[in-house]
Amino acid sequence: MFHHSSKLQYPVKVDKPDPEFAMLLQQAIGGVEGEIRVAMQYFFQAMGTRGDPRIKDLLISTATEELAHIEMLGHAVALNLEGAPLSYQEESAKDPVVNAILGGMNPRHILSSGLAAMPVNANGMSFDMSHIYASGNVAADMLANVTAEATGRVLATRLYNLTEDKGMKDFLSFLIARDTMHQQQWLAVIEDMGGIGASMPVPNSFPQSEEAQEHSYYCLNTSLDKPLPKGRWSEGPAYDGVGQFTAKEKPDILGQEPILGPARPGSGAQKEQIQPGAPLEK
Amino acid sequence: MFHHSSKLQYPVKVDKPDPEFAMLLQQAIGGVEGEIRVAMQYFFQAMGTRGDPRIKDLLISTATEELAHIEMLGHAVALNLEGAPLSYQEESAKDPVVNAILGGMNPRHILSSGLAAMPVNANGMSFDMSHIYASGNVAADMLANVTAEATGRVLATRLYNLTEDKGMKDFLSFLIARDTMHQQQWLAVIEDMGGIGASMPVPNSFPQSEEAQEHSYYCLNTSLDKPLPKGRWSEGPAYDGVGQFTAKEKPDILGQEPILGPARPGSGAQKEQIQPGAPLEK
Amino acid sequence: MFHHSSKLQYPVKVDKPDPEFAMLLQQAIGGVEGEIRVAMQYFFQAMGTRGDPRIKDLLISTATEELAHIEMLGHAVALNLEGAPLSYQEESAKDPVVNAILGGMNPRHILSSGLAAMPVNANGMSFDMSHIYASGNVAADMLANVTAEATGRVLATRLYNLTEDKGMKDFLSFLIARDTMHQQQWLAVIEDMGGIGASMPVPNSFPQSEEAQEHSYYCLNTSLDKPLPKGRWSEGPAYDGVGQFTAKEKPDILGQEPILGPARPGSGAQKEQIQPGAPLEK
Amino acid sequence: MFHHSSKLQYPVKVDKPDPEFAMLLQQAIGGVEGEIRVAMQYFFQAMGTRGDPRIKDLLISTATEELAHIEMLGHAVALNLEGAPLSYQEESAKDPVVNAILGGMNPRHILSSGLAAMPVNANGMSFDMSHIYASGNVAADMLANVTAEATGRVLATRLYNLTEDKGMKDFLSFLIARDTMHQQQWLAVIEDMGGIGASMPVPNSFPQSEEAQEHSYYCLNTSLDKPLPKGRWSEGPAYDGVGQFTAKEKPDILGQEPILGPARPGSGAQKEQIQPGAPLEK
Amino acid sequence: MFHHSSKLQYPVKVDKPDPEFAMLLQQAIGGVEGEIRVAMQYFFQAMGTRGDPRIKDLLISTATEELAHIEMLGHAVALNLEGAPLSYQEESAKDPVVNAILGGMNPRHILSSGLAAMPVNANGMSFDMSHIYASGNVAADMLANVTAEATGRVLATRLYNLTEDKGMKDFLSFLIARDTMHQQQWLAVIEDMGGIGASMPVPNSFPQSEEAQEHSYYCLNTSLDKPLPKGRWSEGPAYDGVGQFTAKEKPDILGQEPILGPARPGSGAQKEQIQPGAPLEK
Amino acid sequence: MFHHSSKLQYPVKVDKPDPEFAMLLQQAIGGVEGEIRVAMQYFFQAMGTRGDPRIKDLLISTATEELAHIEMLGHAVALNLEGAPLSYQEESAKDPVVNAILGGMNPRHILSSGLAAMPVNANGMSFDMSHIYASGNVAADMLANVTAEATGRVLATRLYNLTEDKGMKDFLSFLIARDTMHQQQWLAVIEDMGGIGASMPVPNSFPQSEEAQEHSYYCLNTSLDKPLPKGRWSEGPAYDGVGQFTAKEKPDILGQEPILGPARPGSGAQKEQIQPGAPLEK
Repeated sequence: MFHHSSKLQYPVKVDKPDPEFAMLLQQAIGGVEGEIRVAMQYFFQAMGTRGDPRIKDLLISTATEELAHIEMLGHAVALNLEGAPLSYQEESAKDPVVNAILGGMNPRHILSSGLAAMPVNANGMSFDMSHIYASGNVAADMLANVTAEATGRVLATRLYNLTEDKGMKDFLSFLIARDTMHQQQWLAVIEDMGGIGASMPVPNSFPQSEEAQEHSYYCLNTSLDKPLPKGRWSEGPAYDGVGQFTAKEKPDILGQEPILGPARPGSGAQKEQIQPGAPLEK
Repeated sequence: MFHHSSKLQYPVKVDKPDPEFAMLLQQAIGGVEGEIRVAMQYFFQAMGTRGDPRIKDLLISTATEELAHIEMLGHAVALNLEGAPLSYQEESAKDPVVNAILGGMNPRHILSSGLAAMPVNANGMSFDMSHIYASGNVAADMLANVTAEATGRVLATRLYNLTEDKGMKDFLSFLIARDTMHQQQWLAVIEDMGGIGASMPVPNSFPQSEEAQEHSYYCLNTSLDKPLPKGRWSEGPAYDGVGQFTAKEKPDILGQEPILGPARPGSGAQKEQIQPGAPLEK
Repeated sequence: MFHHSSKLQYPVKVDKPDPEFAMLLQQAIGGVEGEIRVAMQYFFQAMGTRGDPRIKDLLISTATEELAHIEMLGHAVALNLEGAPLSYQEESAKDPVVNAILGGMNPRHILSSGLAAMPVNANGMSFDMSHIYASGNVAADMLANVTAEATGRVLATRLYNLTEDKGMKDFLSFLIARDTMHQQQWLAVIEDMGGIGASMPVPNSFPQSEEAQEHSYYCLNTSLDKPLPKGRWSEGPAYDGVGQFTAKEKPDILGQEPILGPARPGSGAQKEQIQPGAPLEK
Repeated sequence: MFHHSSKLQYPVKVDKPDPEFAMLLQQAIGGVEGEIRVAMQYFFQAMGTRGDPRIKDLLISTATEELAHIEMLGHAVALNLEGAPLSYQEESAKDPVVNAILGGMNPRHILSSGLAAMPVNANGMSFDMSHIYASGNVAADMLANVTAEATGRVLATRLYNLTEDKGMKDFLSFLIARDTMHQQQWLAVIEDMGGIGASMPVPNSFPQSEEAQEHSYYCLNTSLDKPLPKGRWSEGPAYDGVGQFTAKEKPDILGQEPILGPARPGSGAQKEQIQPGAPLEK
Repeated sequence: MFHHSSKLQYPVKVDKPDPEFAMLLQQAIGGVEGEIRVAMQYFFQAMGTRGDPRIKDLLISTATEELAHIEMLGHAVALNLEGAPLSYQEESAKDPVVNAILGGMNPRHILSSGLAAMPVNANGMSFDMSHIYASGNVAADMLANVTAEATGRVLATRLYNLTEDKGMKDFLSFLIARDTMHQQQWLAVIEDMGGIGASMPVPNSFPQSEEAQEHSYYCLNTSLDKPLPKGRWSEGPAYDGVGQFTAKEKPDILGQEPILGPARPGSGAQKEQIQPGAPLEK
Repeated sequence: MFHHSSKLQYPVKVDKPDPEFAMLLQQAIGGVEGEIRVAMQYFFQAMGTRGDPRIKDLLISTATEELAHIEMLGHAVALNLEGAPLSYQEESAKDPVVNAILGGMNPRHILSSGLAAMPVNANGMSFDMSHIYASGNVAADMLANVTAEATGRVLATRLYNLTEDKGMKDFLSFLIARDTMHQQQWLAVIEDMGGIGASMPVPNSFPQSEEAQEHSYYCLNTSLDKPLPKGRWSEGPAYDGVGQFTAKEKPDILGQEPILGPARPGSGAQKEQIQPGAPLEK
């Protein structure tokens, strides 16, 4: 069950409203790097957690915090939209500043939301839930979560750099801090499960004897004119404790040429496809 | 520049065509865990790589291999569609087996593709490119890649378990093996850059002095009736070498109640919102 | 700020797991009639509320309840997936019941979520946030909310009728009851603002003198061979207290034929479009 | 069967072309508040109408009018695009006005449509048909239609306020007038069916004895620190003539803690999830 | 302006309702090969037509006919849904036929539309308007239209083959016939403009002297192990009357290696990307 | 199998970076007229080709070339983003040029990609794979390919006209040239199969005796106030060598009025729909 309290997790202040920055902030709400994504991702992972119940509790606890982050960002967007131009007065139409604001903001902040946040990104694209990754495999999910927080923090620092507004910088410094924790928190779950090595290869429950292990540890070069770049990936022990990385400079091509049979009558093909050879050959 | 050779990377054989398995295999082509995703993700990351040129080369090399994986899966789908029913003959309409096949396969494998693979997932949803994660931050990108390969291998093992076809099992055992390598390969890039600790928090170029560090290392409990589950995430040194994880059992609520001003005239609101209080109060 | 407690709002029990019903239940999670939609719709409306602060509080309070409904449904889906077939054993492949289950369930409940709920509808389409209607106009928003709860209750009763499972019927009878309340709750907000008449036409803040009022009250027939059906919409006073409904049996056609000028050079048109007449005329 | 006549329903004139306003007008074509939506929504509702045949006739008649509204808006967009810059001449590149126009308009009005309307909204997102609500329940559908017309009129008044162009204001005043009628027309259908009370709760054909009626009439507070706001929704008779609204200040939490069993072998989980306890416990 | 008459363009009868065929028919309504697509494509092309006004008239006339085709298909879907099972009665749950129907039909035909057509394809994916191709170039548009009618007729014949229902076969034979005409009709517009040669290369208004003509007429082989297949595309005069087709067996690689500079401070990259070389080199 | 070589197919140079042009170029990568579309369309068509194996080889060969075009465009976008503003410094905020750049570029080129190309169009919408047309009918596919190259070349010439940058103009002149070839190449396949007439109507394998041939050759006028425009489409022999085009000035209306029966109990309808007449009649 969820509950709400009336105040925000952290103060959200805007010294000087900026409708263009409102548009940029939307990326942190409805972008793939944003807060709807992590809130819903942790929520759905929690609902599907099997195994250690601590992980479920940690997921739902953090999902709940992320809902509070959406709430703060929604307020930040609305505050930045204060005073946005609602009409092209004759005077303002000639005013390059008004023109620039109208050109640079998301017009749907006027047309569709009436100066409030929307569940969209900085291009006005609505968030779609196919970005919620919840695989039922806890290691895959934790990796997805570290990734989400990493891109989330990259985004937050870019937003921080783009504004000079003291209120917004303070607010973003809080979000950045929480992303610092959340990145590491999901890594800590992996450590708690035995570490990244013990988790590899994900899923670690599949018997490796059934994979084609002769193809499991070479790094493949598909370049025709450059050697494979050398690094940790081309030598040394694999992380799963089983194999040894090697470099394979050229793919073995082991398969056949993929040719399909002629089309069947009634399949909607051209008749040339059904009686192959004859009408097409020269 | 890209080039092509005519044979498949690995043999693709189907002992007994199965139109329902063709539908399942589509998840490995056009699903978010599938091969279009990794091929395009590595391609776009390569085009945006700044810094160590070895990483760019590794990305484009692996992107190219993933294109070859799409090619194999496309052939596998078509082979499984051989012999699928194209009509409801009076006899077959009464045949529960034909009915089951028609009910269980993707009908668009008949209607739209004429018995061939499509760029869709197992629900027939087209792949959309918003799932290509390429952030310009190499650590975030490598984490995204490990995640993609982890969910990819989870999917491949589930497909492996769902079929009894020897040809398909052999083919999937190859894909599983390559996922084993690719998961670890991207981790190796992170090790090569100094390891996961040195990468944290992503982006590691943002001066941590500017984040609200008093909020950077506590794991927050938002539950009203259960304590925070304890684990590596609630104690011990943070991975970034700076902070120490702690458990915070209850959120500080530091912010204000988020109240917006009245609506402005001309903003499309109801008049009750513009002259607040009066008409709404009792 | 949001909080969580560990138990569900209402008991969720499944007497006999049914993977096909799991697929149907997804419509109540990720369908346009479902709970993600209302949770997020009320949340975004709350963040944009201007005017009477009671409405904001009611919205956020109900948004929070809807989050708890997602949580229950997510559990209901997972319980229904217990025991779903994970492989085509030789025996089971011959078993029509196993085949029917595999054909009738969402295959991504195996392939992508590992037997857990996903943020998708009954066709496996992910929920997309463009369905969150939050216009900044409180009357439009309340109407959208009544609509969402009406379609939500229609869906819940259809699900109720489709199952014989006692646990599921009991759970759905709770959701149906809450939809009964929520439908009426948002209507009550409209009454509280003065009633549907006072709200009309939405937005009631736009000066009706500026609309083309001679076109504001006729119900238009565009049929060539049937008269306008008569009813409350074709006679009697309008609800806004201004006009009188009438029936107009045939549209006035007041406008011009819409003809565009020739294409401009450099606009990517065919040259026949740029020098019209000559090459196209016979 | 549909038919067409060559002139527009109402005159569409543009005194001074404005490519930025063309972008804004797109919201009224391809936005969720726009004309494609209502045209197609009424069309699909008409095709599914069961019961009173007058409703079907009214729906198809109005669907047909909305098609004519798309036609007018399409012409309005094209007229506003007249004279848009097609190239960055050296001179114009230095001209801030040209720059502002190119920055503020939809670039795909040049790149993709050649200076004509597209089925997109003001952010350039294509309309998707999941926004067509046609539930088979006539009361739910009428509520959806009132909502669509309410948000449509909100949008039209915002567009009206944003332009100073006399031709556009006159055209929009017509659209606003028709929205005034259409909002009320669908309400009138509800009155004709016995009124909003008789329709409640939608669907009114479901036997209320089967819903958990003890949960059907309380307005639930989920806030931890504020009482439920009081209003018509928390007291007085319900609209369905059955219950009495009450305020419930705190949710009963009636359900269990939702815990899933361990993962099954072969389900793609980590082995720690399959043999829970051992490797994860400290 | 649009108008409607009450009868269908052609009789739509269903001898034996078939809910699974209802699902298949949806592809002809909301699939990319379907009628919404052509109706809207011709409509938007008509609104953007510049040049020969006959083309605009032909487009809008055919758009109007296609609306009537949606209307017939919508009725065909509803008639096929007559008698679909609405509940899992204990008896019917054991009935494999009922199970097969519920497994093979679109469940949203029960859950979301109440046994009526929806604007979706055979996978239940909603039609999205990005498939409306209207480029402002009349030759490109006519080619798009021939393509749409070709895939439309392919689809209609596949549907025809899949059913044994006399009513449906008769109805589909009409749609197939109209597609026969419409394919050729748009080709006829191209002939009317001077023929396919005169239209080439589209757009024919771009001065070919400004393209890199040394690359305009060779067919490029990118295969490493097979020669370019020979045919009309590798020899003989080009259709535009300018060049001569040739076969180029191996790409010239004329460009540079695409290497980007180091990342800039403040761009959200890792510090290793900003000070390249040092931390990444071994 | 695919391979890669390290240099670009053609030189890509940017004389003066222009972040706004970077946004426009995205249309050629991720727009429906762009290179991802043709690369993937030819790839999927190749995987499904049945019949003449030369066509498969030609498709995969050209698919491979199109991948190289994506690679060049990706580099072109990144080069144009060099030097884009990353922050609103106090000074620059006052600088109208900086403001214009930030307003006119895609903000996600800063926020999401770190100054690199993305798989999106000029509106920032991600490419979605439903635009890959691969029908299994080779004539339909070739027509789709001519169309794709026609709109691709229209786009490329528009981009060419929009820039004054010498490097970009040179690069685009190469893409335009390749589009010139590719348009004609796919037409040549049709000629090779016997010409457009022999292909008509697509699919030419369906026995025309089964279509309602009395409806196969008239061009239908649905206008109420204008005659059908006359042209090649209204007279002369049809291209399929069977019929003769005629003009039909008025549709025969052959069908019934489409009326559905009353709603069934348990279908979620209003009770007025189930017992029609009574409560709705006046």
